[in-house]
Amino acid sequence: MSPSRSRRRGRTAGAAPHPRAPVRPAYDLRPGSPDLASFPRAEWLKAARRALTAAPSHALDYGDPRGRPELRAALAGYLSRARGVRTDPERIVVCGGIAHGLKLLGSVLRARGARTVAVESYGLDVHWRILASSGLHTTPLPFDRLGTDPGEPADADAILLTPAHQFPMGVPLHRDRRASVVDWARRTDGLVLEDDYDGEFRYDRQPVGALQGLAPDRVVYLGTASKALAPGLRLAWMVLPTGLAQEVAAAKGGVDTCGVLDQLTLAEFLTSGAYDRHVRTTRLRYRRRRDALVAAVAARAPEARVTGIAAGLHVLLRLPPGTEQSVVQAAHWRGLALHGLARYRNPAGQAEPLDALVVGYGTPPDHAWSGALDALCTVLPG
Amino acid sequence: MSPSRSRRRGRTAGAAPHPRAPVRPAYDLRPGSPDLASFPRAEWLKAARRALTAAPSHALDYGDPRGRPELRAALAGYLSRARGVRTDPERIVVCGGIAHGLKLLGSVLRARGARTVAVESYGLDVHWRILASSGLHTTPLPFDRLGTDPGEPADADAILLTPAHQFPMGVPLHRDRRASVVDWARRTDGLVLEDDYDGEFRYDRQPVGALQGLAPDRVVYLGTASKALAPGLRLAWMVLPTGLAQEVAAAKGGVDTCGVLDQLTLAEFLTSGAYDRHVRTTRLRYRRRRDALVAAVAARAPEARVTGIAAGLHVLLRLPPGTEQSVVQAAHWRGLALHGLARYRNPAGQAEPLDALVVGYGTPPDHAWSGALDALCTVLPG
Repeated sequence: MSPSRSRRRGRTAGAAPHPRAPVRPAYDLRPGSPDLASFPRAEWLKAARRALTAAPSHALDYGDPRGRPELRAALAGYLSRARGVRTDPERIVVCGGIAHGLKLLGSVLRARGARTVAVESYGLDVHWRILASSGLHTTPLPFDRLGTDPGEPADADAILLTPAHQFPMGVPLHRDRRASVVDWARRTDGLVLEDDYDGEFRYDRQPVGALQGLAPDRVVYLGTASKALAPGLRLAWMVLPTGLAQEVAAAKGGVDTCGVLDQLTLAEFLTSGAYDRHVRTTRLRYRRRRDALVAAVAARAPEARVTGIAAGLHVLLRLPPGTEQSVVQAAHWRGLALHGLARYRNPAGQAEPLDALVVGYGTPPDHAWSGALDALCTVLPG
Repeated sequence: MSPSRSRRRGRTAGAAPHPRAPVRPAYDLRPGSPDLASFPRAEWLKAARRALTAAPSHALDYGDPRGRPELRAALAGYLSRARGVRTDPERIVVCGGIAHGLKLLGSVLRARGARTVAVESYGLDVHWRILASSGLHTTPLPFDRLGTDPGEPADADAILLTPAHQFPMGVPLHRDRRASVVDWARRTDGLVLEDDYDGEFRYDRQPVGALQGLAPDRVVYLGTASKALAPGLRLAWMVLPTGLAQEVAAAKGGVDTCGVLDQLTLAEFLTSGAYDRHVRTTRLRYRRRRDALVAAVAARAPEARVTGIAAGLHVLLRLPPGTEQSVVQAAHWRGLALHGLARYRNPAGQAEPLDALVVGYGTPPDHAWSGALDALCTVLPG
């Protein structure tokens, strides 16, 4: 998941900013980006040197539309180990972000005759629009106390889900529903599109494995370097059922569209263990931030409530009914960029309106984190 | 221009290879790629280190769909100096190759109501197909002794040209026709798409400037790093008339789709002078290769004839009538990958069939060059 468009919109044309509001926020707690100041520049440059020194010349040519074999091999190993994904490098297609992946999948599904993709009641409208631009109808699934309910979506050819950590609601897909959605896919020849945007970040226990591991022939797994490293790398990956990989590669226009140098570097980063080390370090940092956020809200804003599992780079912060808009506006006044839940609600969905904030605690650099948290607590009703 | 698809097709499903022919050619003289062994790895890594060290953290975030401002500023300076392009960074949009640029332009032109793009009688079918996939009709222009004749294309909304060095015919757009095509664009509110794929490589004189310099508001300039550096970078650029830049950026989906690290590195490479040094070095190497090719053909295959200007990374090698197919087949037998002109002829064009080879002398590494040239001379009718 790459909430890029939402963030951009928030920055440029968002929610009728007050005329006297500051143009650049002093603090940014919008979800979507990791702490970019922690990007491992020195380690990345070392990996780039090793990768480019070792690469054969032909690696710099027009390449396999699925992406560099070095990266696909490294990802196959990593995803198996870290996320329980079952694949070989042949079924991986590298892409320029999860949005790019969905664009490719949308065109392939449409060409296969698909008409409808069931989506979650809460999510990124940019993803829904990408599917719609391929000519697919999107229809939202119910969301209840147990989270998204895939049920038996009538007429859906595919279901787009965030099983490990629902974005933005912050809950995992319920165990029974994990089983039933796979069962649905098997029975109806349907496809599950698993958006595993932040699956590496779980703080209270081992992350639940990818849904793909249950049914590699019925689930498309989508992962990204945007949360663990940086969106600017423009590197993401799909693990596809047999047969679909070639179709998706063809939809790329028959050529690799991602720069090979970063692909080779990421492959080296993964196989050398630098990626795991970096994820461990940042996981600890984000966990501490989340703990601090939970504690500060409990102490200073008892009417607000952090919900969802201890995971990812954002929390859903429930607010008293009717207060979301005024809190977002107050934050804006104080130079704190903040997103309410409203912008993530599917307008066609049946979900009852909830007042909440989607707080991205990954976004600020370390030096701005406590100031951002303080600004948040100041504007919360309490 | 990125003859990637043509090359790929040549490698995988090309022209009914003989069953006993070798799978991997010993020599490769197909056009489209530079000598990848000469990619300046050490210089590139130095630039990457400087660029990543200097970059602000927010450069690693989701970015401006036009591309990194550092790269657009560096390109504005370079293109003005080296190609006579008139622009500021605001009108530059970075893309992942000229094919990607044409895809974006095709969708924008179609959305603006354009229906027809005039193309050259010889060129890359992948470009024609990209325009067609946007719903545009392509109609080939006449090609005569003076090269492509843009004339007064009836009903065309745009014209796609390779003015500095027609691909693959190797001639520049005639001076009178440069003036008249710009005049046509001004009178009819038309647009010229200038594919300047190898404009930096001219060996006999200063390169003729970009057509864009004559009419920045009527010409879209397309350039690429694929020939001067490597296709694997997946970096190219468009210089657009005012107004069109924002539309093309929006067609990218509102986000930067190219990796920022290579963009920052290329910006540093350009501004530090490393790019100019590299182009000077490779220009000398390619010039020597071209000279050797001309001399060897004259000495060993007097019935063949190199045509076109001393420029670029390929020559058109005219053959006696009726011999093209057998020469390509003989080359294939000897492990020499070679393209005939036939695959570059627009099937809807009126151009009379010519027997010729499109010889990419940039492709082999230095150590394989003389062997490749010898293999070529061996299969030429002489």
